[in-house]
Amino acid sequence: MPLLLLPNVLGDVSDFSLYLPPSVEKAMARIDGLIAESEGGGRAFLKRFKTKKKPHEMPIALLNKNTPAGDMDFLLEPVIKGETWGVVTDAGLPCLADPGSGLVARAKLRGVSIEAFSGPCSITLALMLSGLSGQRFTFHGYPAKEDELRKKELQVWEKTSEKEGSTQLFIEAPFRNDAILADCLMALKETTLFCVACDLTLSTQQVITKRIKEWRKSPLPTFAKRPAIFLFTAA
Amino acid sequence: MPLLLLPNVLGDVSDFSLYLPPSVEKAMARIDGLIAESEGGGRAFLKRFKTKKKPHEMPIALLNKNTPAGDMDFLLEPVIKGETWGVVTDAGLPCLADPGSGLVARAKLRGVSIEAFSGPCSITLALMLSGLSGQRFTFHGYPAKEDELRKKELQVWEKTSEKEGSTQLFIEAPFRNDAILADCLMALKETTLFCVACDLTLSTQQVITKRIKEWRKSPLPTFAKRPAIFLFTAA
Repeated sequence: MPLLLLPNVLGDVSDFSLYLPPSVEKAMARIDGLIAESEGGGRAFLKRFKTKKKPHEMPIALLNKNTPAGDMDFLLEPVIKGETWGVVTDAGLPCLADPGSGLVARAKLRGVSIEAFSGPCSITLALMLSGLSGQRFTFHGYPAKEDELRKKELQVWEKTSEKEGSTQLFIEAPFRNDAILADCLMALKETTLFCVACDLTLSTQQVITKRIKEWRKSPLPTFAKRPAIFLFTAA
Repeated sequence: MPLLLLPNVLGDVSDFSLYLPPSVEKAMARIDGLIAESEGGGRAFLKRFKTKKKPHEMPIALLNKNTPAGDMDFLLEPVIKGETWGVVTDAGLPCLADPGSGLVARAKLRGVSIEAFSGPCSITLALMLSGLSGQRFTFHGYPAKEDELRKKELQVWEKTSEKEGSTQLFIEAPFRNDAILADCLMALKETTLFCVACDLTLSTQQVITKRIKEWRKSPLPTFAKRPAIFLFTAA
């Protein structure tokens, strides 16, 4: 009755198997159902693998930011009865920048065995490709929505980076990517090294690292509506 | 002339290919040389793949905490001349909890193209398997060596966790694992959720998450000399 935490690819890649270890293919042949972030994302994932039933016959249960915390026992019911279920998000690793950890915590308390698989992760790929330090770092999730709060938050993160020598990472709703980039260019110090990692693992991948001063000088590329992660270290 | 950032497995697993995506095998067939954390680790990695030359004939250059920052241009020389080199650490992803980012930063400045591959990472696996939140987290590297400083540091991280709702992660030299666990049980609050993730991906894997209060009550398992990562969230 294990719960299998499965990696997804980071976007519309033609060959899933190039990005995921073969153990994921084997795991997918074992599952009786899938807990997914969205119905569409879950079905698209199922279609890529050989499964016990046809992809459209496999049960899918949803777990996302709208799922009440009290629903975890309901989601775990088939697993506790002896079935094997997978957990997958629409992109990357479950439980990272994603509310899956509540399910895992509850599963551990109920004695469910849990297996995690390695795979693409925008946070680690961005750290590797940015040239910024991965020896110490913080992933913040989303910055504050309110303008003044967000500006202050960015500056607090910059001070922390300066003090610790750490890298600070965050994400934004893709339609707001260009707006948050503009905010960063205003709020951060000109010597801070700032990186945008966009469309990771896709053919359109861009990972640009420059000092804020240089970002301000050059014409800004657009990252709107493309998956991106932002990271910086203060000098 | 690309530089390929390659994942390694997290320990002595019998079948590398189960843990790494097939793209790593293809990448290994392209490389002219390998930048590794240690000679032994590099050779062991090479032996697992089909390479252009025999594993013992492939050139290995070292990049680790003893490498002077000024050596990056020397390491990049063959790549700049047109060769394809891989970068690998003894376990997990290069540049994470590892000094590889200086090489990547220099390579970017010199116009070298860089490709990163996905693979096992103790930080993300621990977050997924712990049941602790992966929506916001900090990886600190190693805690301070001096007793009082270390205790204070743990308590500062706990306060940050309480304020942000974030998970705090750190590592220790494996021979000190039991000592740092004892320190945490003394320094942290009894309601804090504390996890040890040990021997990740190995047959001896243990991921134990309990409140500090419960850790204090039960007999302590030993994690000495086994790769482990520690993580906690304040309640």
